[in-house]
Amino acid sequence: MGEPGFTLTEVRLCIIGLGLMGGSLAKALHSKVARITAQDLDPAVIEAALADGAIDEEGTPNDADIIILGMPSHRIVETIQTLDVHPGQLVMDLGSTKQVICEAFDGLPDRVSAVGGHPMCGLAENGYHNAIPTLYRGARFVLCETVRTTPQARQQAEALVCALDAIPLWIDRRRHDALTAMTSHLPHLLNFALMRLAMDIADEDPDVYKLAAGGFDGATRLARTDESMLVGMFGTNAAEIRALTRRLRQHLDALEAILDDEDALRRELPPIVEARRQYSDDYGERPIA
Amino acid sequence: MGEPGFTLTEVRLCIIGLGLMGGSLAKALHSKVARITAQDLDPAVIEAALADGAIDEEGTPNDADIIILGMPSHRIVETIQTLDVHPGQLVMDLGSTKQVICEAFDGLPDRVSAVGGHPMCGLAENGYHNAIPTLYRGARFVLCETVRTTPQARQQAEALVCALDAIPLWIDRRRHDALTAMTSHLPHLLNFALMRLAMDIADEDPDVYKLAAGGFDGATRLARTDESMLVGMFGTNAAEIRALTRRLRQHLDALEAILDDEDALRRELPPIVEARRQYSDDYGERPIA
Repeated sequence: MGEPGFTLTEVRLCIIGLGLMGGSLAKALHSKVARITAQDLDPAVIEAALADGAIDEEGTPNDADIIILGMPSHRIVETIQTLDVHPGQLVMDLGSTKQVICEAFDGLPDRVSAVGGHPMCGLAENGYHNAIPTLYRGARFVLCETVRTTPQARQQAEALVCALDAIPLWIDRRRHDALTAMTSHLPHLLNFALMRLAMDIADEDPDVYKLAAGGFDGATRLARTDESMLVGMFGTNAAEIRALTRRLRQHLDALEAILDDEDALRRELPPIVEARRQYSDDYGERPIA
Repeated sequence: MGEPGFTLTEVRLCIIGLGLMGGSLAKALHSKVARITAQDLDPAVIEAALADGAIDEEGTPNDADIIILGMPSHRIVETIQTLDVHPGQLVMDLGSTKQVICEAFDGLPDRVSAVGGHPMCGLAENGYHNAIPTLYRGARFVLCETVRTTPQARQQAEALVCALDAIPLWIDRRRHDALTAMTSHLPHLLNFALMRLAMDIADEDPDVYKLAAGGFDGATRLARTDESMLVGMFGTNAAEIRALTRRLRQHLDALEAILDDEDALRRELPPIVEARRQYSDDYGERPIA
């Protein structure tokens, strides 16, 4: 980025948590940085990443320049609070909520840099074994300023995001959490509620799944998400999700009330169809959650 | 099927309503039957289907052996009530609900045959211009017996389904509507409610869609469905959909109550994830709604 003292090819990266997101980041960056070390709770994941050449060795963040936290949101907060960091290091995360995490970043020692991060990409199936080097390509990568975000940290974070072929998008932490409650967390909650209901119906009539097709698949696909990620997502953004769930119920009630009112349906539905098609035209359609 | 007097290659088919379903059926069968005629409200659709070679000519059901009704459910009911049919003809439909339609079939004159049909396949975008000859391939095709279903009509309906490379599945009309309320109609309703809420949020903050990815896409994709199809689907199955919506609210309430309770989430979520993954293993994953 033309900043003295910072070239991505000289960066030593340490990734803590080699799941889908951390693992894909390692695979995307291993040829673009000086070294990648990693830690994961599962020794088999470290072995696999070493065998893949996605990381150079297992190792602590001790002598890394940039530390990436790739765990579920609630674990990121815990980790920040106990992380042994040095002046000059930059800490970033990949968590799905930003307020609680950025507050933890705010409390890091002076002269340690920190930037909150949330790449807007993923797959329904998590874990290192699903990691792919192209996961971030073309995705928006939210960046959130913290008390510990220096101008240099901003540039480093942006350079890292660009090296992933992603698009940096700086957003206030509070706004991020309100908006992703809409675009991600509430959809997760609804997918789970719908799948939970399907389990009840399947108990009553096991043939129900034979009558399912792509519509059901798409409306429940997020219920394949690992529970740890959900615990972090739901637990660190519960208030925003609840505020939206209240508003969703109003729309659900309103639509339910007109199910058999053709005139009302013909008034209410077309603007929604139009908005969804416009969204698809503007932002593309990603076939898998 | 070894039945005297019935060979698919000698069948004259008439399709009324050349949308996604009727159009795909024409494209799949035009080389397997003697002749396909069709009617559609839109003259441009007939022209396109003639140009594609999907149909042989525009024409009435008058001298057809099998008549396929490919409109939205509520239009199918209206059409059956005014259809000019003759003894020996078989009428089938492709509508997304079955009780109301099969009741209309029950009222057809004696010696006219009728079988209710609902292929479990589709695309998020409707209309003839999205029709593809492979749409039905591998899909279950629900068949419902009516008062007018003779043993020969059963065989003809099954032969037609097999010619589409689909899998016949005979189910009671009432059970069909209860189960598809779960697998299709309620998912549609939820997708619409969620997209409707997103429109509110987008009014408040237009950047919301920049924070959307595959999760949002999948949870709202059914909101691209044409309103006419929804009017038929919702209007002819409102009671079943409402019964399920009540039950869904209970699960939504229960999950919402534990959003920030890690122990409860770790108890409640894994069986849902497990059920969804098992479903995926058992039935495959269809990437587009």
